[in-house]
Amino acid sequence: MNDPYAFIENGSVTSPKGFKAAGVAAGLKRSGAADLALIYSDVPANFAAAFTSCVFAAAPVLLGRERAATQETLRAVVINSGNANACTGRNGMERAREMCVLTARELGIEPEAVLVSSTGRIGVQLPMAIIAGGIKKAAAALDYASGAAAAAAIMTTDTVPKSAAVEIELSTGKVTVGAMSKGAGMIAPGLRVPHATMLCYIATDAVITNALLRDLIRRGVENSFNRITIDGDMSTNDTCVILANGLSGAEVKAGSKDAEIFYQALQTLLQQLAREMVMDGEGATKFVTVYIENAPNEAAARACAEAVANSLLCKTAWFGSDPNWGRIVAALGYAGVDFDPGLVNIYYDNQAVVINGGDAGTPEKELAEILRKREFSITVNMNAGPAKYWVWTCDISYEYVKINAEYHT
Amino acid sequence: MNDPYAFIENGSVTSPKGFKAAGVAAGLKRSGAADLALIYSDVPANFAAAFTSCVFAAAPVLLGRERAATQETLRAVVINSGNANACTGRNGMERAREMCVLTARELGIEPEAVLVSSTGRIGVQLPMAIIAGGIKKAAAALDYASGAAAAAAIMTTDTVPKSAAVEIELSTGKVTVGAMSKGAGMIAPGLRVPHATMLCYIATDAVITNALLRDLIRRGVENSFNRITIDGDMSTNDTCVILANGLSGAEVKAGSKDAEIFYQALQTLLQQLAREMVMDGEGATKFVTVYIENAPNEAAARACAEAVANSLLCKTAWFGSDPNWGRIVAALGYAGVDFDPGLVNIYYDNQAVVINGGDAGTPEKELAEILRKREFSITVNMNAGPAKYWVWTCDISYEYVKINAEYHT
Repeated sequence: MNDPYAFIENGSVTSPKGFKAAGVAAGLKRSGAADLALIYSDVPANFAAAFTSCVFAAAPVLLGRERAATQETLRAVVINSGNANACTGRNGMERAREMCVLTARELGIEPEAVLVSSTGRIGVQLPMAIIAGGIKKAAAALDYASGAAAAAAIMTTDTVPKSAAVEIELSTGKVTVGAMSKGAGMIAPGLRVPHATMLCYIATDAVITNALLRDLIRRGVENSFNRITIDGDMSTNDTCVILANGLSGAEVKAGSKDAEIFYQALQTLLQQLAREMVMDGEGATKFVTVYIENAPNEAAARACAEAVANSLLCKTAWFGSDPNWGRIVAALGYAGVDFDPGLVNIYYDNQAVVINGGDAGTPEKELAEILRKREFSITVNMNAGPAKYWVWTCDISYEYVKINAEYHT
Repeated sequence: MNDPYAFIENGSVTSPKGFKAAGVAAGLKRSGAADLALIYSDVPANFAAAFTSCVFAAAPVLLGRERAATQETLRAVVINSGNANACTGRNGMERAREMCVLTARELGIEPEAVLVSSTGRIGVQLPMAIIAGGIKKAAAALDYASGAAAAAAIMTTDTVPKSAAVEIELSTGKVTVGAMSKGAGMIAPGLRVPHATMLCYIATDAVITNALLRDLIRRGVENSFNRITIDGDMSTNDTCVILANGLSGAEVKAGSKDAEIFYQALQTLLQQLAREMVMDGEGATKFVTVYIENAPNEAAARACAEAVANSLLCKTAWFGSDPNWGRIVAALGYAGVDFDPGLVNIYYDNQAVVINGGDAGTPEKELAEILRKREFSITVNMNAGPAKYWVWTCDISYEYVKINAEYHT
């Protein structure tokens, strides 16, 4: 291939060498859908993780931080949906630890080599008998081809499972990176780094140190999941983990050209999953990229981008294909950034909407045509400096309200 | 009366002595509804004003700031709905000035004695022939009993006009304060003080200096309109003005007991209008008070209150009468405030929901009963310090999405 990396058809978290996975129905979800996933590496895998910056971090997040601080390698990740094990106190911590013990026992490994994640309803204790049965079932179902099943088992309000993998040609050999993620609501860029804003599990067979993994995941999350917003809410359970088991034998050395190629491939993979997450946003009918250009500095560009991307009035206008740009300038105006409104130009795709802070004169019909598309961009040229930023967002529909008014898990 | 102040039945902006008003249909709204209001004081009135902190401030706001900086008194306020005269550049500024000139000509006063406000669609030039006709009509209709008509003429997506007045017994005599306001969308607490978050016009016949008026309006807005949020969006046109024409002959002196009584009456009046605004929030079916208690400091209390009050997930849960408190703790958790989640207690009205950061064990049925009410409160006791704050908010319904997806003015 010409490109140093390419997507693998039907790629998943089990695409890299030496990773098995499983997704089973433990019985946590009333619907009977799959709700427990397991990822297993044949050998100890280096790892790095990023977690929510929410003060009410869930028990598995607290335990995950402990693993990240004390463990050099992991062997398995166990994830349940249907119950977030958040705001469950000491009892919840014990149950998170118990999930690791149960998983370790089934797999014949140490409990400390297991990372646990949970997603779903907050404030309810995990039903451990159901969890134990699910873990037993998942361990028995572990398979080199079950990445897709695992991705399905971590879904909550997602309508489609999200998996992808890339193959990378490095100077040291061929490596593969596979990943699965979930998230359709409670999605917003966090406020601190490092952090993630949903669940995402990445596996690779490359040989990489933990230090480089930490750097890769920080940059990768910053340029993908931290660029998306669905409803402006951030979760108690957001987790992103990368495991590198080295079984390809090909090394990625910090500072090398290989490391840069590997990062680009990882970013492409994570952006693909982040895009899918927004496309599958609760009730979303439109995918919108907000570009801020020529801002005074990156923080200002980001504040402006996020103000527009999170504005309920903008999001409902997009749902209605309403070309009215007044809500966009209102959002820019309250972003807390000082700039000259008379210099601002705004475009829908390549069509001018606002020039020098006033109407550009493009017929509404032409603008409405753009806003009726499934995907379009909004570009704001602030003419105020050298910085830029972009965010992916979606519209807010009746369906969003329906899902969230009626979602009791 | 025992209380030093009381609401006047059917009170309005014309309740105080020497204020006339009018509300007419100029033809700016396609519906043919009233869209131009005029308030007139028989004598020059002292005044103070607060405006939006939005960078894209509309032309009438820019002109209003000029009046506030250069004028000692005002005689009239002219307000149109159906067109915001925002993002209209130099041309828009000229038209705002022209509205003052036209009004002054009809009333035989100086243009500088007129304050202008606009609300409605952004980015469209005012049709001056229609405006001129409306001003002529309004001037002819000015009347001591037309406060209600004026309140109706400033509505946009409001479903009911908002007027109120209080009568106050001071040591110096009886004074009256009347007000009208509008706002049902693009409502959020601003970020800087002084500012307002909607349109509100207050008239009083008390004798008060401009310095004291500025202090009163700053405190009054801070404790009323800056405490409400409907959709987290702030407008380009928010304006709050108080006029004091002195015709009661009763003086309110800075630092006096009368001043404190007057302020309490004003605050009660503004809170009444702010409550009505939230009750009439676009598509709102629930009125929710969020109390934060025992926070480390007031800024933290405010950040937590606003995070909950603006959370789309909380607002849709309230619409669905869903007692799930997970979304509340998630919102508290991302408010950017550091606190111990294990100390947090949460109540719906007086019913415990969360104790020490975990489920309080109150049956869901009892909680759902509270959330089905038209009005309820959420109290968060952070057990982390001495500070508190409160905010009024509402739910987000299908109707909100409908109104904002289909509102093209």
